[in-house]
Amino acid sequence: MRLLDPLFTTDKMREIFVDTNRLQRMLDFEAALARALARAEVAPQSSVAPVEAQCKSNLYSHEAIASAAALAGNLAIPLVKELTALVAKSDEKAAGLVHFGATSQDVIDTGLVLQLRDAFDCTEQDLARLSSVLRRLTTEHKATLLAGRTWMQQASPITLGLKFANWLDAIERHRERLVQMRRRVEVLQFGGAVGTLAALGNAGPRVAEGLAQDLKLALPEVAWHAQRDRFAEVATIYGLLAGTLGKIARDISLMSQTEIGEAAEPSAPGRGGSSTLPHKRNPVGCSVVLAAAIRVPGLVSTMLSAMVQEHERGLGGWQAEWETLPEICMLTSGALSHLVQILERLKIHQDAMGRNLDAAHGLLMAEAIAMALAKHIGKMPAHQLIERASHQAIESGKLFREVLVNEKEISKYLSSREIDQLLDAKNYTGSAQVMIDCVLNSAKKH
Amino acid sequence: MRLLDPLFTTDKMREIFVDTNRLQRMLDFEAALARALARAEVAPQSSVAPVEAQCKSNLYSHEAIASAAALAGNLAIPLVKELTALVAKSDEKAAGLVHFGATSQDVIDTGLVLQLRDAFDCTEQDLARLSSVLRRLTTEHKATLLAGRTWMQQASPITLGLKFANWLDAIERHRERLVQMRRRVEVLQFGGAVGTLAALGNAGPRVAEGLAQDLKLALPEVAWHAQRDRFAEVATIYGLLAGTLGKIARDISLMSQTEIGEAAEPSAPGRGGSSTLPHKRNPVGCSVVLAAAIRVPGLVSTMLSAMVQEHERGLGGWQAEWETLPEICMLTSGALSHLVQILERLKIHQDAMGRNLDAAHGLLMAEAIAMALAKHIGKMPAHQLIERASHQAIESGKLFREVLVNEKEISKYLSSREIDQLLDAKNYTGSAQVMIDCVLNSAKKH
Amino acid sequence: MRLLDPLFTTDKMREIFVDTNRLQRMLDFEAALARALARAEVAPQSSVAPVEAQCKSNLYSHEAIASAAALAGNLAIPLVKELTALVAKSDEKAAGLVHFGATSQDVIDTGLVLQLRDAFDCTEQDLARLSSVLRRLTTEHKATLLAGRTWMQQASPITLGLKFANWLDAIERHRERLVQMRRRVEVLQFGGAVGTLAALGNAGPRVAEGLAQDLKLALPEVAWHAQRDRFAEVATIYGLLAGTLGKIARDISLMSQTEIGEAAEPSAPGRGGSSTLPHKRNPVGCSVVLAAAIRVPGLVSTMLSAMVQEHERGLGGWQAEWETLPEICMLTSGALSHLVQILERLKIHQDAMGRNLDAAHGLLMAEAIAMALAKHIGKMPAHQLIERASHQAIESGKLFREVLVNEKEISKYLSSREIDQLLDAKNYTGSAQVMIDCVLNSAKKH
Amino acid sequence: MRLLDPLFTTDKMREIFVDTNRLQRMLDFEAALARALARAEVAPQSSVAPVEAQCKSNLYSHEAIASAAALAGNLAIPLVKELTALVAKSDEKAAGLVHFGATSQDVIDTGLVLQLRDAFDCTEQDLARLSSVLRRLTTEHKATLLAGRTWMQQASPITLGLKFANWLDAIERHRERLVQMRRRVEVLQFGGAVGTLAALGNAGPRVAEGLAQDLKLALPEVAWHAQRDRFAEVATIYGLLAGTLGKIARDISLMSQTEIGEAAEPSAPGRGGSSTLPHKRNPVGCSVVLAAAIRVPGLVSTMLSAMVQEHERGLGGWQAEWETLPEICMLTSGALSHLVQILERLKIHQDAMGRNLDAAHGLLMAEAIAMALAKHIGKMPAHQLIERASHQAIESGKLFREVLVNEKEISKYLSSREIDQLLDAKNYTGSAQVMIDCVLNSAKKH
Repeated sequence: MRLLDPLFTTDKMREIFVDTNRLQRMLDFEAALARALARAEVAPQSSVAPVEAQCKSNLYSHEAIASAAALAGNLAIPLVKELTALVAKSDEKAAGLVHFGATSQDVIDTGLVLQLRDAFDCTEQDLARLSSVLRRLTTEHKATLLAGRTWMQQASPITLGLKFANWLDAIERHRERLVQMRRRVEVLQFGGAVGTLAALGNAGPRVAEGLAQDLKLALPEVAWHAQRDRFAEVATIYGLLAGTLGKIARDISLMSQTEIGEAAEPSAPGRGGSSTLPHKRNPVGCSVVLAAAIRVPGLVSTMLSAMVQEHERGLGGWQAEWETLPEICMLTSGALSHLVQILERLKIHQDAMGRNLDAAHGLLMAEAIAMALAKHIGKMPAHQLIERASHQAIESGKLFREVLVNEKEISKYLSSREIDQLLDAKNYTGSAQVMIDCVLNSAKKH
Repeated sequence: MRLLDPLFTTDKMREIFVDTNRLQRMLDFEAALARALARAEVAPQSSVAPVEAQCKSNLYSHEAIASAAALAGNLAIPLVKELTALVAKSDEKAAGLVHFGATSQDVIDTGLVLQLRDAFDCTEQDLARLSSVLRRLTTEHKATLLAGRTWMQQASPITLGLKFANWLDAIERHRERLVQMRRRVEVLQFGGAVGTLAALGNAGPRVAEGLAQDLKLALPEVAWHAQRDRFAEVATIYGLLAGTLGKIARDISLMSQTEIGEAAEPSAPGRGGSSTLPHKRNPVGCSVVLAAAIRVPGLVSTMLSAMVQEHERGLGGWQAEWETLPEICMLTSGALSHLVQILERLKIHQDAMGRNLDAAHGLLMAEAIAMALAKHIGKMPAHQLIERASHQAIESGKLFREVLVNEKEISKYLSSREIDQLLDAKNYTGSAQVMIDCVLNSAKKH
Repeated sequence: MRLLDPLFTTDKMREIFVDTNRLQRMLDFEAALARALARAEVAPQSSVAPVEAQCKSNLYSHEAIASAAALAGNLAIPLVKELTALVAKSDEKAAGLVHFGATSQDVIDTGLVLQLRDAFDCTEQDLARLSSVLRRLTTEHKATLLAGRTWMQQASPITLGLKFANWLDAIERHRERLVQMRRRVEVLQFGGAVGTLAALGNAGPRVAEGLAQDLKLALPEVAWHAQRDRFAEVATIYGLLAGTLGKIARDISLMSQTEIGEAAEPSAPGRGGSSTLPHKRNPVGCSVVLAAAIRVPGLVSTMLSAMVQEHERGLGGWQAEWETLPEICMLTSGALSHLVQILERLKIHQDAMGRNLDAAHGLLMAEAIAMALAKHIGKMPAHQLIERASHQAIESGKLFREVLVNEKEISKYLSSREIDQLLDAKNYTGSAQVMIDCVLNSAKKH
Repeated sequence: MRLLDPLFTTDKMREIFVDTNRLQRMLDFEAALARALARAEVAPQSSVAPVEAQCKSNLYSHEAIASAAALAGNLAIPLVKELTALVAKSDEKAAGLVHFGATSQDVIDTGLVLQLRDAFDCTEQDLARLSSVLRRLTTEHKATLLAGRTWMQQASPITLGLKFANWLDAIERHRERLVQMRRRVEVLQFGGAVGTLAALGNAGPRVAEGLAQDLKLALPEVAWHAQRDRFAEVATIYGLLAGTLGKIARDISLMSQTEIGEAAEPSAPGRGGSSTLPHKRNPVGCSVVLAAAIRVPGLVSTMLSAMVQEHERGLGGWQAEWETLPEICMLTSGALSHLVQILERLKIHQDAMGRNLDAAHGLLMAEAIAMALAKHIGKMPAHQLIERASHQAIESGKLFREVLVNEKEISKYLSSREIDQLLDAKNYTGSAQVMIDCVLNSAKKH
């Protein structure tokens, strides 16, 4: 375990991508290949059990494999060598059929596909949880008023439910993307040295089909050793998700600022303290999500750059993927998990939301006033008139209401009672409710 | 026109993303909004024509808009201001309804969606052309032998058709991704200042629906001002494509090396010459494709980083998209177009392919020999024996055949006639034909 | 002019990197080469004037050059061809000496170096201005109190001068880096087709030296056609600067939030308004700086990826630089200029700073209390005691002071008068003044 | 040890950045702080030894620290807590002074600086070794002829020494950059919660000075918690280096292609074999270097993106650095080490270089002919004439010499003896020798 893993990723994801499991998934490929060779009658049935018996990662010295890989250039070569040697101890003939027809990249790529499939399952579950909590929050806070903010400035009122609905809406798209991507990615890699399966004579397709079935992977039209769009797509799908998670964490951290105080991460003993400041409750979860949103884009660009792989199997690009893609999955999953935990027990301070609605002394409602006035004098003149009134309020420090009531060009058309109504935020949330319902209805379908 | 546009992108893409069209698409939004407001009876029908009349980008001074945008912070503010002023000259009331209910981002985002839709059409057509030429080449060269290369070394024989089939297979996946993405992206952006459409009272959904219909865009559940996964997804889809195009160009440029000589870009007067070397035929097309494959990943990471946008509409992230996303589309399309042109008239030198098959004096067939031998002595011993024989051939400079025939451990099992057959590349292409047919059958469905 | 140039970059930078100047700088190289050839007696003196006469970019059709470049693969080939043709009209012999000994990349790279030199001058001036305004602000606000914030939460008091000093300190490092980098980058590129200057026989070094002198560039040990660390370093230097600028803009935008109100960008007519919200004053300058900080990192990664250039002159990597490096310079300079303008007239609201110091009802001073208490009971027990007191204050909504005074374990050691003193922010700014003076003294040296 | 560490990095670098050492370097900070507090008379001398005694990373459960960090948000908080508890067992008073005045980031950042300093030492040594082997190779192969290649095509002859000199020249610049960077980066981080050292009263500067001296780090003007240009600069310096290393590996791998055969990585048992192809000698070293050159740019962009850190200490950006910067150093160092090993025993096949010079049947010398002819008929006409002759040779398959001799416009000016001399590559390496000497002389100075 790396020291920062518990902070940056989840236990589940770590178990999937931990080195032991990397080897195990490669060994799963070799065991399945032994079965497929036998089923296709390329190898005798008797060769299966001796191979299967050695396909357990705890039988191997990780240090020895790692050191040998430094010379061999990849993990498959020393692993297959050691596997063959182990099998040979009990059955020399079976040993001769280990890895038969395959190339290193078949083992390594398919092994990674198997790891990714488990990762996708995890991510789907976490996205479902995130969707679920967001649906609850959206419903609960349909009508909770707070200041809508644009360009980092208060703009017009919204409801908290609409904010949550916006997040939910994006998450539903990510779920759809994940499903579509999985169909392209959960496929076998099996082509032999140059993708022709030549070592298997004409038994190639038969073995390939059996192998795919055994591993419950789809059978691709052709090996894809140097066409890396599948793995790169995984990177982009997680990259997009990391971006949305980062957006949500940014919002929560902004709402949690001391002076704003509208939200706070759930607290727990040992969580978010400071080594020197006794009063601090640091938004640790948000920091992890934001860190992922900063780190993943660069890693995605690596996966895209690495796509330019030479000829039948490339030099450098393939190797660049090995740690990068798991890192992307782990970081994004860590962020996803932190966000689910934050949202499931998010502290929401409606009183602060109410207080902040008044922070600009009524200016938040400037559009409402301008729109009412526009009906009388047209949009642009109304806009300009209210723009002037706004600046007057800012510079004089007066309440917006006071300026409005005293401005003849305004009071000519709007009574002070009308102005009061227009200045009430709850009267100016437009179609927020309709939109929230649309999002909730659409999200239900998943 | 920027000096390097004709090199790096296509005329069509440039027309879509040129500044004039950026303004025009924003004006198309404003005209459609005018019609939608009238249809929803928010504005009188009489206000439509005066607005439509001014929604032509050539009525506006680009310099004035550009300068004003430097203060205003975006192009919509000065454009709407100027549009309003122009409308006001003929119809003050209609002027009061210009941009009614909308915010700058509605205009800018929807304008970009309209540009992107045209770009997607272009890309679909070019991908169809690429697919078509690859299908032809795959079919023609099903059986054309050449050296398969891995880790930048000759490995085992393949057929040129299989190489093309691998490219084709990836391109078909990109076509599928594009279709799936379009359904998420070709949607209206319309939410007003904070996404509530508050300025429209309860007419918001009605106007939004009319506007979407008018622009032939889907109506989203909710405005997506600060959920940028849609635009970021466009970036990733093009990013993935650029990677595959780069891979193909890398292969072609490697095959075109003077000493390899298996392929060459089509030549034409003025194409690929040198300012000082009279004999040069530079692979200009490949250089453009490779440049795109180098540039696009960084731009994609920008789009992902930019997703972290604050609250209802962000600060900095949105602005970072404006030039980045069009650049991604333009560069990738330029690469795509160059590649189509290269492949449609690619020079293929089968003689060189034949010659290169012998470049390693028979070593290319080492796996074939080892596999034949494995049937007698097991895979690992055969591998090791042939490995030694290979090194002997390399170090002594002898033909591989000669070494094989003289090695007793080999001649014990394989006659020199068998060895000759095993050394014939055309006998060792495994399931290449089957795979090629699979790819062609699958590609036909599109 | 591109529509968004006035927003995203400066007029000066645009003039440096505009297409016309790109051509002009290439022509400057050709004119200087003509002079250097004559001085080295490779060409007659009479060939100089006819070449010089045609080295004006306005003599050339940009469209024609651009179109031809799409075939030729770079701008130098058609430009040199056209230059030669123009010279030939007046002096055929001189025409035969145009571009003599040079290759396209010599012209293009040196042209870019000349553009960069001007850009560096601009950046140095703008950094000096930024340094100057920061020194003034640091001095003025040495003792202005405000809340220091960490993890987006109020932490302990600082002075505004210290915040400015931190920014200043970073800017001084950027100035130093720029100077060091310039010495490596402002060098001639001149090597002919493969870097040997073979076309000049043994006159190569003589011509190179004259050319470098003429262009006031340093003479490198060897041509650097495929060693791109120089240009990539430019990218990183600007990339680092963009990061610091982004950090400053982030701070300003956070301080400018409606509820915080400690700072505001200077206002001006037409600046930062909204298309629909009359009261808005959007921090337009910050949005531009932040957008640059988001865009530049991806572009820097492109420049680094592009360094892997093949053999004597590469394929794809070089081409990837042409628009990327200028873009980096332009975006960063735009951000720098916006930030200078913001800071030179930054609105600082000390009253809001004072008010926000109390926003956490005294908790900001928790460390001060804990440290005083630590002298009596040790650091960890004091930390834990005050941690509990802080949470009690938060949960009960009481003033921190009240909790402290009523907690016996505290009042045992600290009188309420002592507590009051400890709760006064101005008594807890530590060594801020000393540090500020250090920064100011160090900055003066530049 | 991670499975791929031995392949991707060096043992030395792994020891520097391994988790144990990360904790150790943080503990080194705490021990030095204890000494500095005593020297500054903030703490009694007696508190030093009890703290020092516990500052050994093997006294701590990594799992416990890691788990606690997941809640606390960083490693320093649980480490300091545990350290304090351990010290308290022997000396309660000393425990009260652990970490006194410091904040988590002081420990973590300074710890990383200490790790980086060791990394820089390693890198300097490896660069010196690389420089040394390149100087030897440059000297040895000053006059070894081979084809210069541009745009992936043969262009004109060069010498192998010039190729090496170009690499060497770049490496010398990297050494210079490293030295300049170290002076900015090897500094103390020490500011307390918000950079004011307030907890130390007015003893801050005194303690800081002592701490810096103890750790042999420079004392910065001011803490730099949220000004991350120092760490980001480290990333860029390594990023630039990775680019140059990648360029060299690309060249070697291109020269090592089966059909080119001009170079080969040194072979060794277990090195570069294939799991299925017995004859393969994969350029494993190059694959690692190229993988680093692909991975590092994205990681650098992460470090640049992470610079935008909020206020006195940020949220997300700092956390994003923790694994990214070590990864950059480790990957680049691994690449550097692989390249040194490759070059120290690089196999150079001069016979293949000679053979390849003829691969284009003489066309490589086209510029030489054109330049000779230019003296008679001017450069452009000569260029066009030889361009035509070149194409004639290519299309007819004739030797270039034959075409030249039979072309009257050429034989009019150049005798067949002159043509033969011009076609001899060794007569057309221009100033290669002079340039090589310049590079060697300049490199000697280091």
